[in-house]
Amino acid sequence: MDLDTEHVRIELAERSYDILIGPGVLVRPDSYQGLPAGAAAVIVTNTTVAPLLADQLAAALRTHFGRVQVIELPDGEAHKDWPALNMIFDALLAAACDRKTVMFALGGGVIGDMTGFAAACYMRGVPYVQVPTTLLAQVDSSVGGKTAINHPRGKNMIGVFNQPLRVVADVDTLATLPQRELIAGLAEVIKYGPIADDAFFAWLEENIGSLLARDQRALVHAIRRSCEIKARVVSQDEREAGLRAILNFGHTFGHAIEAGLGYGTWLHGEAVGCGMVMAAELSVRMGLIAPAYAARIQQLVARAGLPVRAPGLGVDRYRQLMGVDKKSEAGVARFVLIEAPGRAGLHRVPDDLVDAVVRLYSE
Amino acid sequence: MDLDTEHVRIELAERSYDILIGPGVLVRPDSYQGLPAGAAAVIVTNTTVAPLLADQLAAALRTHFGRVQVIELPDGEAHKDWPALNMIFDALLAAACDRKTVMFALGGGVIGDMTGFAAACYMRGVPYVQVPTTLLAQVDSSVGGKTAINHPRGKNMIGVFNQPLRVVADVDTLATLPQRELIAGLAEVIKYGPIADDAFFAWLEENIGSLLARDQRALVHAIRRSCEIKARVVSQDEREAGLRAILNFGHTFGHAIEAGLGYGTWLHGEAVGCGMVMAAELSVRMGLIAPAYAARIQQLVARAGLPVRAPGLGVDRYRQLMGVDKKSEAGVARFVLIEAPGRAGLHRVPDDLVDAVVRLYSE
Repeated sequence: MDLDTEHVRIELAERSYDILIGPGVLVRPDSYQGLPAGAAAVIVTNTTVAPLLADQLAAALRTHFGRVQVIELPDGEAHKDWPALNMIFDALLAAACDRKTVMFALGGGVIGDMTGFAAACYMRGVPYVQVPTTLLAQVDSSVGGKTAINHPRGKNMIGVFNQPLRVVADVDTLATLPQRELIAGLAEVIKYGPIADDAFFAWLEENIGSLLARDQRALVHAIRRSCEIKARVVSQDEREAGLRAILNFGHTFGHAIEAGLGYGTWLHGEAVGCGMVMAAELSVRMGLIAPAYAARIQQLVARAGLPVRAPGLGVDRYRQLMGVDKKSEAGVARFVLIEAPGRAGLHRVPDDLVDAVVRLYSE
Repeated sequence: MDLDTEHVRIELAERSYDILIGPGVLVRPDSYQGLPAGAAAVIVTNTTVAPLLADQLAAALRTHFGRVQVIELPDGEAHKDWPALNMIFDALLAAACDRKTVMFALGGGVIGDMTGFAAACYMRGVPYVQVPTTLLAQVDSSVGGKTAINHPRGKNMIGVFNQPLRVVADVDTLATLPQRELIAGLAEVIKYGPIADDAFFAWLEENIGSLLARDQRALVHAIRRSCEIKARVVSQDEREAGLRAILNFGHTFGHAIEAGLGYGTWLHGEAVGCGMVMAAELSVRMGLIAPAYAARIQQLVARAGLPVRAPGLGVDRYRQLMGVDKKSEAGVARFVLIEAPGRAGLHRVPDDLVDAVVRLYSE
């Protein structure tokens, strides 16, 4: 493989796999070496990404697969649902794809989550590869095997854990990414600092400008470090029995914002950005971190161009939306809080503190 | 536990579990001892079974769970689909059920397959227990972790492998089972003879009358022996990489019959019964077994009251329907054939032999 390509390994016994990171990895046939040589490769992508990248990926795959098929889904979080998932099943069955089919998720987090879920369920499981084309997918959603679709009552409520065979993260694909989506991806990058690596947080404070300007060297570093942290966490707790929950820093508030506004109004990363600011404030009020550290988080989120004010849905609606969060247990909301710079944990939080934070940021 | 209760163990490392078989096991609270003491137990059942058994199961579960909820689905194979599956998700989310919920599948194969699939997907996985109430579910579908829903293009095309925590098979529940469904269940019992145990096949020839008359001692023996054989096969090949396919003896033809007529016209067991007769004939034509042995299989299927003539869908339609069978690979149909009394394997079969058998049995 190319010398410029960075490798990060996810250690999960017989489900271990590699993440390849670098410019041009998507189009290089050797990125796909060693995958099971099945009859058919099926690329699942969306109508936005397909014209930009589907032909390039198909060409690279044709050196390994006898048949390459492309399935195009409608674009957007609003289509992360059963009808779109069923479009994948319909297409696979119409083409008589068998259990040896290998699926490729070419797109952002929505495509990755849906393709991984479809791969888990098609004929009780076919293998798949993640080819993330957004920053958010490259640093977060393509790694770790979480797959899902949304339900009107909550985000990602229906899904499974299903690890990919490989992740191929090509920074060249970020060249055409709309700035709003690049920024949304930075929310998940920023996340890794407070929860796991204070030095990385400081690096981000230094380099946020370069990242916003799409400096490729800075992007590769940010993606590699994000994947390394995620790999370490996922290897220790694949099915989110405990530790893995820290990756959801900002997500309890974030999911409430997304669901409350209707999926797709705010991008996932935007909601998480604002959610991290709120969760940091909650960490202060729980006496875990100093206000100055929460302020640094808020400043970095704001400098990235992410929202730091939540929509005014009302306290009651926020509580209702957070009551069905997957981290809740017996109706008590639990939050990922920062316990110290670079360390996070799951905490039960009194309702009145949650309400106060919701009011502060949304009224 | 009660001395009358038979135990069969499925060995699958950390996913190992027990099958409890006997009269009255459904209502005995100690059948549910040792399950994770979650907040809520959710019984998934259908409108036919609910009035007969839901209250009894709920009473037994209340000794272990703080809250017991019942979800009733429409009855029948025709409802083994996404809308019915989504009824489960809707109900779980409406009740704010969390990840510690334990689900109970109370019913036949359709309820078991759907509950197991829903449990796998709800918040990326909650545990579940099989409480099969039909003979077919007790001897086959509740054991081994195959879960699925149907797709218009093929049966069980969308699903996952998801092992239950336990199987509670109460023969008392068979008392109210319609005779047609008892007979359909016998098809899966008969299956275990030719594929795995010639002595059991001889026992069935001796005892088919007692089974049809619902002699409880005979039923317990047939269920236990069926589960033992299935346990041995599943323990060796959980995800159907090879050996496990033998459990699908009769199912390639059977699935074609079911799909061709529209799900629910013939019961699954009826289609499998006829499918076994056809697959036995195919085994003869491939030179694997003597015609006399195929004749014994046909006689036993007929004595059980199962169909031995297939519907006249036409050869082309049969081939089309079998082309998307999960056992097919690169468009070549593969069949489970009997290689000798008590032994089966997966074989590629020339199209003209398949056509000849379809013609013989359906024209």
